[in-house]
Amino acid sequence: MSLKFAKRMDNMKASDIREMLKLTQKPEVISFAGGLPAPELFPVEEMKLVLAKVMDEYGTVALQYGPTEGFEPLREKILDRMAKLKVDDLTIDNILITSGSQQGLDFMAKAFINPGDIILCESPTYLGAINAFRAYEPRFIEVETDDDGMILEDLEEKLRENDNVKFIYVIPDFQNPSGRTMSIERRKGLVDIANKYNVAVVEDNPYGELRFEGEIYPAIKHYDTEGRVIFLGTFSKIFSPGLRVGWIAADEEVLRKFILIKQGADLQSPTINQIAVAKFLDHYDIEAYIDRIKKVYKRRKDLMLNTIREEFPEGIKVTDPDGGLFTWLVLPPHINARELSIKALEKNVAYVPGGSFFPNGGNENTLRVNYSNMEEERIVEGVRRLAQVFKEALEKIEA
Amino acid sequence: MSLKFAKRMDNMKASDIREMLKLTQKPEVISFAGGLPAPELFPVEEMKLVLAKVMDEYGTVALQYGPTEGFEPLREKILDRMAKLKVDDLTIDNILITSGSQQGLDFMAKAFINPGDIILCESPTYLGAINAFRAYEPRFIEVETDDDGMILEDLEEKLRENDNVKFIYVIPDFQNPSGRTMSIERRKGLVDIANKYNVAVVEDNPYGELRFEGEIYPAIKHYDTEGRVIFLGTFSKIFSPGLRVGWIAADEEVLRKFILIKQGADLQSPTINQIAVAKFLDHYDIEAYIDRIKKVYKRRKDLMLNTIREEFPEGIKVTDPDGGLFTWLVLPPHINARELSIKALEKNVAYVPGGSFFPNGGNENTLRVNYSNMEEERIVEGVRRLAQVFKEALEKIEA
Repeated sequence: MSLKFAKRMDNMKASDIREMLKLTQKPEVISFAGGLPAPELFPVEEMKLVLAKVMDEYGTVALQYGPTEGFEPLREKILDRMAKLKVDDLTIDNILITSGSQQGLDFMAKAFINPGDIILCESPTYLGAINAFRAYEPRFIEVETDDDGMILEDLEEKLRENDNVKFIYVIPDFQNPSGRTMSIERRKGLVDIANKYNVAVVEDNPYGELRFEGEIYPAIKHYDTEGRVIFLGTFSKIFSPGLRVGWIAADEEVLRKFILIKQGADLQSPTINQIAVAKFLDHYDIEAYIDRIKKVYKRRKDLMLNTIREEFPEGIKVTDPDGGLFTWLVLPPHINARELSIKALEKNVAYVPGGSFFPNGGNENTLRVNYSNMEEERIVEGVRRLAQVFKEALEKIEA
Repeated sequence: MSLKFAKRMDNMKASDIREMLKLTQKPEVISFAGGLPAPELFPVEEMKLVLAKVMDEYGTVALQYGPTEGFEPLREKILDRMAKLKVDDLTIDNILITSGSQQGLDFMAKAFINPGDIILCESPTYLGAINAFRAYEPRFIEVETDDDGMILEDLEEKLRENDNVKFIYVIPDFQNPSGRTMSIERRKGLVDIANKYNVAVVEDNPYGELRFEGEIYPAIKHYDTEGRVIFLGTFSKIFSPGLRVGWIAADEEVLRKFILIKQGADLQSPTINQIAVAKFLDHYDIEAYIDRIKKVYKRRKDLMLNTIREEFPEGIKVTDPDGGLFTWLVLPPHINARELSIKALEKNVAYVPGGSFFPNGGNENTLRVNYSNMEEERIVEGVRRLAQVFKEALEKIEA
């Protein structure tokens, strides 16, 4: 038997991250590979109480079908999250609940991409987005980036040269994988350019609230004057990824398309999860909880960066992120981080080869390192082992 | 501003059912429109205890990311469900957890359909499947049906005449919307024909365990000799739809494609929901619970059918289903059930016009009626009001 699959399946391959996560589940592995929150911070006791309340107060409602758009009180509460990023002109009619922001990525391509259409993205960009988009057979054009995010001159040039660009995909804060943040000026400039060329913008913003110090940056959507920025949010990084509760915030007309897509895709996100998140927000102080996360992640990040600076051989560049979960390493050009990831795994340390984050390939001298999920002594030990791997590789090259 | 959406969006429209459900949420409406389980049967107290246990025993795991394939102990338990339908040659490597079986429908089209490819389906067929499939721009060819399901001669003729058929979509038990069940002989015959023409079969089987009397029929997948039947299952109708836990059971090679699709679509179904279902199955007797559901639904079905027979004017055909949630009415050819649904709503009774279940249109003299969700006196009262609506319509035609 050989069934005939759709053409799109030729483009799809397993996420390196998800496959690697399987290898890294052995307890002896120090994993910098995933993008997992620190589980010891999860509000387990609070959620136990919340779930009991949900069953007491909403029992039959929680176990029943609910509206495709989502549980209204939760959509209401999401307006607070948006306001924190200075997006304060929305109503619940702009909010659709999704199963994590990953689902928003899939829907985005489903709504906009015909085979061959172009997606402009940061170089590098989030691997999960590349995989979600690929199912719709787009062409990716990577926009050059620096420490302030997408370089707008390059963005505009690529828009000028290509007329079937459907959207610009961008992760403005503590980008996955690079850890870099788009400057406020460029946020404004990005919207101006999108207006000029009449393309949509997908703002994937799972980490914006996880800024370690100083004021949170306004979302790109804050600068949206024409309803063309589609914002993807999630509770995965500020609360719990295992609940799979995210959202799309968009112009009403655009959101209606996403609601249709949601109906076809899975009818609705789980009722009980949505009520539980809404009740958690009612009964507990999410801001205090986010502060606790930030404190721990900042400490881990500082420790990782300091250890890297102490232990790593010269010639390796590292990002010092202002928030979020990741840092990014650039090795000398001739060092292949994908090959070295095998050597690292032999020493029971895991990371994700950076090449995976470039939809058009190359850049195999880079890697993404996560600091949120490992406890402090393991961070130090893991960085030390990595330092050894890189030293050996550099010596070999020199020899 | 006018953003350019993908071509597929031209095909997508709101589900009549989901739109109607919004109108029917007023408490005074007697709704036969949805496909909702009886909420008063939900094991609310049991779930409260289960959720507390999940948080005690799996707290951080339940709130964390988990594997794309799903929670292993749940996949293990799903083998029992499959065995109940006489599919007993599977392992957990054949099982992928999805967000309801609706997600399985979406994935099916995503895996197999290029624009213009043909889907063979029952006439009528499930509206939610039509909407999910439409996003992938297939052509639907309806196969004639009778009281024993798809007519195999017609199926074979359509396979002979069309060479880009990708799959046959079928709901074998207590079909949504017709309430009819495919005979055992035809299940075997369907697999033989699929083998002969090398096409996949999607068996959408949410109701198989809800047979009111006699032995459960073996699933079509029981007769699958070549791994070409893809089985979609769900806990929505035997436990709770608000948890959104379903599954795909398929040949390993085929399942690998679905796992890739799942990664891109939403990474994984919620961890906590999967653990909760597995723990419920550990601690409670799901068979006893299903028996309770069946008893209530059978009583409601009998009451509805008896009232229809007593109250309805002549010339209306009704299915007497052996299980499941729906019955199906065929009015005289010139009566338009879609138009009458407005009149029925004026009397605070709702149903779904049957025309919506025919992907290529027509058949506007039909309607789907749900009996699982309304209490007994409301069933009687609702049928009486419908009888009045139909009598008036018939008298008008005669006059």
